[in-house]
Amino acid sequence: MAAFSFPVRVYWEDTDAGGIVYHANYLKFMERARSEWLRELGVNQRTLVDSDEAALFVVADMQIRFRRAAHLDDALVVKTTVDVVRSASVTFKQEVFRDDVLLCDATVRVGVIDPVTRRPKAMSETLKARFE
Amino acid sequence: MAAFSFPVRVYWEDTDAGGIVYHANYLKFMERARSEWLRELGVNQRTLVDSDEAALFVVADMQIRFRRAAHLDDALVVKTTVDVVRSASVTFKQEVFRDDVLLCDATVRVGVIDPVTRRPKAMSETLKARFE
Amino acid sequence: MAAFSFPVRVYWEDTDAGGIVYHANYLKFMERARSEWLRELGVNQRTLVDSDEAALFVVADMQIRFRRAAHLDDALVVKTTVDVVRSASVTFKQEVFRDDVLLCDATVRVGVIDPVTRRPKAMSETLKARFE
Amino acid sequence: MAAFSFPVRVYWEDTDAGGIVYHANYLKFMERARSEWLRELGVNQRTLVDSDEAALFVVADMQIRFRRAAHLDDALVVKTTVDVVRSASVTFKQEVFRDDVLLCDATVRVGVIDPVTRRPKAMSETLKARFE
Repeated sequence: MAAFSFPVRVYWEDTDAGGIVYHANYLKFMERARSEWLRELGVNQRTLVDSDEAALFVVADMQIRFRRAAHLDDALVVKTTVDVVRSASVTFKQEVFRDDVLLCDATVRVGVIDPVTRRPKAMSETLKARFE
Repeated sequence: MAAFSFPVRVYWEDTDAGGIVYHANYLKFMERARSEWLRELGVNQRTLVDSDEAALFVVADMQIRFRRAAHLDDALVVKTTVDVVRSASVTFKQEVFRDDVLLCDATVRVGVIDPVTRRPKAMSETLKARFE
Repeated sequence: MAAFSFPVRVYWEDTDAGGIVYHANYLKFMERARSEWLRELGVNQRTLVDSDEAALFVVADMQIRFRRAAHLDDALVVKTTVDVVRSASVTFKQEVFRDDVLLCDATVRVGVIDPVTRRPKAMSETLKARFE
Repeated sequence: MAAFSFPVRVYWEDTDAGGIVYHANYLKFMERARSEWLRELGVNQRTLVDSDEAALFVVADMQIRFRRAAHLDDALVVKTTVDVVRSASVTFKQEVFRDDVLLCDATVRVGVIDPVTRRPKAMSETLKARFE
C-alpha cells in the first residue's frame, strides 16, 4: 500500500530547552498524520463515535525510536503505512523525516473500541476494507 | 479572602528552544491552580457536570502579562485570589512567582455554563457561596 | 495593512475532556500564525538570534477573549494584523475563525529582546520596516 | 533497586475529547518522574549541561503500552526502576498506576550525549554509580 505523507512544521511550542523537539511531541505529529490519513480514506473520527458503528480509535501500544533531533522551523514529513490489519486493530509504521534524514520512527498499534464500554470491537467490513 | 498557593515545578515539557517556559504554559499552570483550589473548596469539576447542577467552568477571557522568564527545574508558586463573583462567572487574580520574583500575572474570568447547551448559567447559591 | 490568514486543523492533542479545544491551545495557534507571518516577511527567527542583530521575539502581554468553542476536526483560520509598531515591540490583533464564526480574539504585544541579556532592544530599521 | 514513586494529578490540559488522558501525555508524566528521581539522586540536569561533565539525557527509544484510560482529576502514581545501566545509557521501567490498576507501562532507554556534538558520551563513574 502506498505511504501517506503529511507535512509538519516545527514551532516554538514543539521545542524544549535542549533546543530540539521534545520527544513526546513526535507522538502528536504521528497522530496528526494518522488523523489526516483517516480523513483521506473518508473516515470521520468525530461522527464515527456517534454513528451506528460507534467506534473509537485508541493507541494500544507503540515502539518508538528517536534517532536525530529536529529544530525550530524545520519542515518535517511524517510517512505512514499500514502494516497489519486485524478485526479490532490496525498497526501502522510511521517515520518522521527532514529531507532525506530519518529522525524518528515508530510502530503504532491502534485499537478499535466501543466508545461507551471502551472494550475492543471488531470493525465493520466497510471500515476494515479502507485500511486494506 | 486569603490567597490559595499552588506549587508548580518546571519540567522539560514546559520549556521551549529559547531556554525558558513557553508562554502558553503559564495558562496551564494557572488552570491547575484553579482546579486544585476548587478541589479544596469541595467542588468536584467532574461530578459537577453530571450532577443536578450540571455546570461547567470555562475561561471566558483573560489579561495576562509575562514579566520575567522561568527556567527548567524552577520551583514556582501560583497565587490565586477571587476578585469578583457574579451569578454566572468568577474573576480570579493569579500570579506566578519564583521566590519573591513575580514572573507572570493575569486576571482570568471564568464563566459557568450548562454543559449541554453551553450557554451561561447562574450558579446555585451553594456553589456561589464557596467563592465568597 | 492586509491581514495574514493561517489555517489550523484541530487534532485530538488540541482538545480536552470538555470535548472542545483547550483554552491555552489558542495561544499556540496564534503563535504559529505569527511565526508563519514572520517567515513570509522574510524574518527567520532561528538565524535572527545568532545574527548581528541578535534579536528574539517574546510575548509581553495579551488580552484574549474565548467566545465560542472549537471541536475535533474543525478547520480554523487565524487572521493576524499588525496594530502598533514601536521601537522594541509589535502589537498584533489576532482572530480565530471557523468559517464566519469568530471563536477567539486577542491583542498580543510581542517584545523584542536581546537573547543574552533578555533586555528590551530596539529593532533595526530593516526589521521594523517589515512590520510597517 | 527500590522503585521511585512520583504522584501526578490529571488536569484538563492532559485530557482529550475522548474524555481520557491523551496518550502522548503519559510520556510527559514519565519524564517528570525521571526528572524528579534524578533530582533525588543529586543530579541537576540544568547544571550538568554546563559542568565539566557536559552531559545531557535524551530519550533514545521506548516501548509503551496503553492499557487503561485515566480521567480528569485522577490521582496517578508513576513507578520507576532502573533496568540496565550502560556506559552511555540507562534503561528504565516505568509504570503508571491509579490505585492498584496499571494504566500504562513502558521501557525507556535514555542516552547520555554531549550537549554540543550531540554524540553519545560515556558517563563519569560518579554519575553512573548513582544509577546502580
